[in-house]
Amino acid sequence: MKMKKFAIVLSGCGVFDGAEIHETTLAMYAIVKQGASYDVFAPDMEQHHVINHLKGEEMNEKRNVMIEAARIARGNVKPLDQFDPADYDALLFPGGFGAAKNLSTFAFDGPNCKVQVDVEKAIKGMHKAGKPIAALCIAPVLLAKVLGDVKITIGQDKGTAEAVVKMGASHENTDHGEVLIDSENKLFTTPCYMLDATIAQIGDGADNVVRAVLKSIA
Amino acid sequence: MKMKKFAIVLSGCGVFDGAEIHETTLAMYAIVKQGASYDVFAPDMEQHHVINHLKGEEMNEKRNVMIEAARIARGNVKPLDQFDPADYDALLFPGGFGAAKNLSTFAFDGPNCKVQVDVEKAIKGMHKAGKPIAALCIAPVLLAKVLGDVKITIGQDKGTAEAVVKMGASHENTDHGEVLIDSENKLFTTPCYMLDATIAQIGDGADNVVRAVLKSIA
Repeated sequence: MKMKKFAIVLSGCGVFDGAEIHETTLAMYAIVKQGASYDVFAPDMEQHHVINHLKGEEMNEKRNVMIEAARIARGNVKPLDQFDPADYDALLFPGGFGAAKNLSTFAFDGPNCKVQVDVEKAIKGMHKAGKPIAALCIAPVLLAKVLGDVKITIGQDKGTAEAVVKMGASHENTDHGEVLIDSENKLFTTPCYMLDATIAQIGDGADNVVRAVLKSIA
Repeated sequence: MKMKKFAIVLSGCGVFDGAEIHETTLAMYAIVKQGASYDVFAPDMEQHHVINHLKGEEMNEKRNVMIEAARIARGNVKPLDQFDPADYDALLFPGGFGAAKNLSTFAFDGPNCKVQVDVEKAIKGMHKAGKPIAALCIAPVLLAKVLGDVKITIGQDKGTAEAVVKMGASHENTDHGEVLIDSENKLFTTPCYMLDATIAQIGDGADNVVRAVLKSIA
């Protein structure tokens, strides 16, 4: 049997302005541990802003999403506009504010957000091809915005859940490590750091969501 | 029994100019999974340089080691000059070029390198207190330089092993996931990405080194 291959889409490097590092690393770890492989993609664009992660304040700097994502990927990142659904068995979005600041404008515009054009194309392409998409933490809002009438979880945050419903999707509360599966649309979502979680619980969530995806295409 | 507590010392955020992200995250994960806890420390100093991780080239930027380390630590980093060996059961250094560019000058000066003053103090303090120190990947060179006559591994790289010997330490080759223990000095070293490793093998190394440390102080 051919090894299953994930495309992981990153939004930078660091929870407050990019991809959440623990969620990303533990998703990569889960994929390889479970006998699959991955490539990393990111949009070649400027970050919305740069946050000093020590103080939580904006820095007077500019950084590029793909270049910073390469820190987590040890150099190996492809531009997202080159992503082709035909080459992959599954798509995975880790969380972090980058999903809501760079891959979309959800952090600023809520249900009226825009989704970055290559992110939208990747989601629509995989969905049309009947291939699974996994999303962690806040990243499931991308699926709600792009696909509309789907079933996702972002954990238990009331405001975010209401925004999800306003985008035409339905929301179910979940707890640490739980995976919500929308079988019809092949969507796999798990709350990770949208809950007040330990890194061990992030490992559980990443492991469980990757296992559910691989089981669905076994 | 009181929960064991590690101090993790970071050198930035990203393999080519800071702390290796997978090694750091998987060490944190191993610590919490095995029932211990951790605090993160980093020196409050400018990075030696900033590398574009996509192209491998130097960028015309300045970044601070502690501020960038906060990306991996989700904001929670203490300045290394505040580290007190009395507060911790073990010290752990992930790898990444930051260990050889920021925590020391090993990448440029080899066996004649200098070790950053707070790093040296932390290592000497833990060693004197008879407490264990773990080091991954290239970070064991810090132990060789500061402590001299100790036994470590940096994997199988001949040039680096020779430099270790020149600093007065002895070196043993190791393979993926193996932990070399210097019982007398309570040093625990493992090669991680000093070998051409998968992220699953990094997880094994991190898990094994943390388990060996915890066993030694159970």
